Amino acid sequence: MFSFFNWRKSPVEKENPNVSKLLNTIGLKTAKAELYLQALRHKSVYESSYENNERLEFLGDSILDSVVAEVLYEKFPQAKEGFLTQIRSRIVSRSSLNKLGFALGLDQLIDAQMSRDVKETSLAGNALEALIGAIYIDKGFTVVNTFIRKKLIEPHIHFDTILSHESDPKSRVIEYAQKKKVRVSFKTSLHQKEEPQSFKSTVVYDGDEIAFAFGPSKKKAEQKAAAEAIGILRKD
Amino acid sequence: MFSFFNWRKSPVEKENPNVSKLLNTIGLKTAKAELYLQALRHKSVYESSYENNERLEFLGDSILDSVVAEVLYEKFPQAKEGFLTQIRSRIVSRSSLNKLGFALGLDQLIDAQMSRDVKETSLAGNALEALIGAIYIDKGFTVVNTFIRKKLIEPHIHFDTILSHESDPKSRVIEYAQKKKVRVSFKTSLHQKEEPQSFKSTVVYDGDEIAFAFGPSKKKAEQKAAAEAIGILRKD
Repeated sequence: MFSFFNWRKSPVEKENPNVSKLLNTIGLKTAKAELYLQALRHKSVYESSYENNERLEFLGDSILDSVVAEVLYEKFPQAKEGFLTQIRSRIVSRSSLNKLGFALGLDQLIDAQMSRDVKETSLAGNALEALIGAIYIDKGFTVVNTFIRKKLIEPHIHFDTILSHESDPKSRVIEYAQKKKVRVSFKTSLHQKEEPQSFKSTVVYDGDEIAFAFGPSKKKAEQKAAAEAIGILRKD
Repeated sequence: MFSFFNWRKSPVEKENPNVSKLLNTIGLKTAKAELYLQALRHKSVYESSYENNERLEFLGDSILDSVVAEVLYEKFPQAKEGFLTQIRSRIVSRSSLNKLGFALGLDQLIDAQMSRDVKETSLAGNALEALIGAIYIDKGFTVVNTFIRKKLIEPHIHFDTILSHESDPKSRVIEYAQKKKVRVSFKTSLHQKEEPQSFKSTVVYDGDEIAFAFGPSKKKAEQKAAAEAIGILRKD
């Protein structure tokens, strides 16, 4: 875009090569490079919400939801709302957003101070949402809509896989919580050290411990706890 | 819009006076009246998702979220993401959407078959979300953005009231006590040392222990006890 005239790099881009790389990756030229700089700033480095990417993430999150909603609305003209909601929650799940963030190489560009491996955190997915917010403010809805379709959904979202994915209890609990806009997490730890080892997993839904279960592995304990949780959540 | 030429009513509008009324209320002319007809159709009358308003509601829901996010992002340039999320959740809550739906008179226009009083259900709020979806498909993002700002937020959302409303139970108990000029305090202590740790909190209101609750943290135990206390104080 705008390549028809000789675009000069802004001071922000010159001083921040990561912003330059990001703009290259997404194929945009901008007069508001500071927005993209902000999108890459994690709160671990920039305390003030005015400087870190959390506000842009807030904005980008719902814009991504809107565009994915529209894509699904068009793609599945006969589908019911429940189906559309379920498919969307898979596309915008934390793990899916992280993968998309990695696919764009955001993990290499983020300005964060973290002891843990960045791959294990949600930094890349969060930065992706912030980037969507930045593009929206900079270029408007039509451009961000095209970005989400062409750079994220078309190359990286495989509908066949998503549709064929028989959802396991843990995914279903996460989907349910997303739909209700409630936080859910799994607290899982070693319960018995001696052989046979066992793990305990507790489902924390909206701050409450609603179910727990034991299993021979972390994964199995979580799936069993999730199955318990589904039974409880359904009664609501 | 489009009033500069003589717009003729479509057959859909002629056959469905409610669609005509709706378009009048929101001040739009359209060549796609069937979208607005669909926005008014509740699933109690139209089983097929292709005919009722649930798919449009799915679309409108996230578009409303996006526009409200943008409004808050602009209005509170220094606010943190947590604050923006909280304020938005109040604006787009079921009860708030219902009020907005009533304000537009949607309850009078919906095509539904319900035994209960329509006022007690979420029909008006859901139809409002569907209407937002219909406007988006018909006119695009800029028009629906303006609609949400000019017809919903500016006339009906009172930020002063929303901001002054402290919503967590503990704050409400304290406010209530202040209003009644009565002393209130929270006695909170570790209840169970072993994992999973739990805390007990007791609400002391005017010298009496009126409610108590347990929780996995001090804060959660207090909020739960406060919620109990509200139930008791309200009966007075």
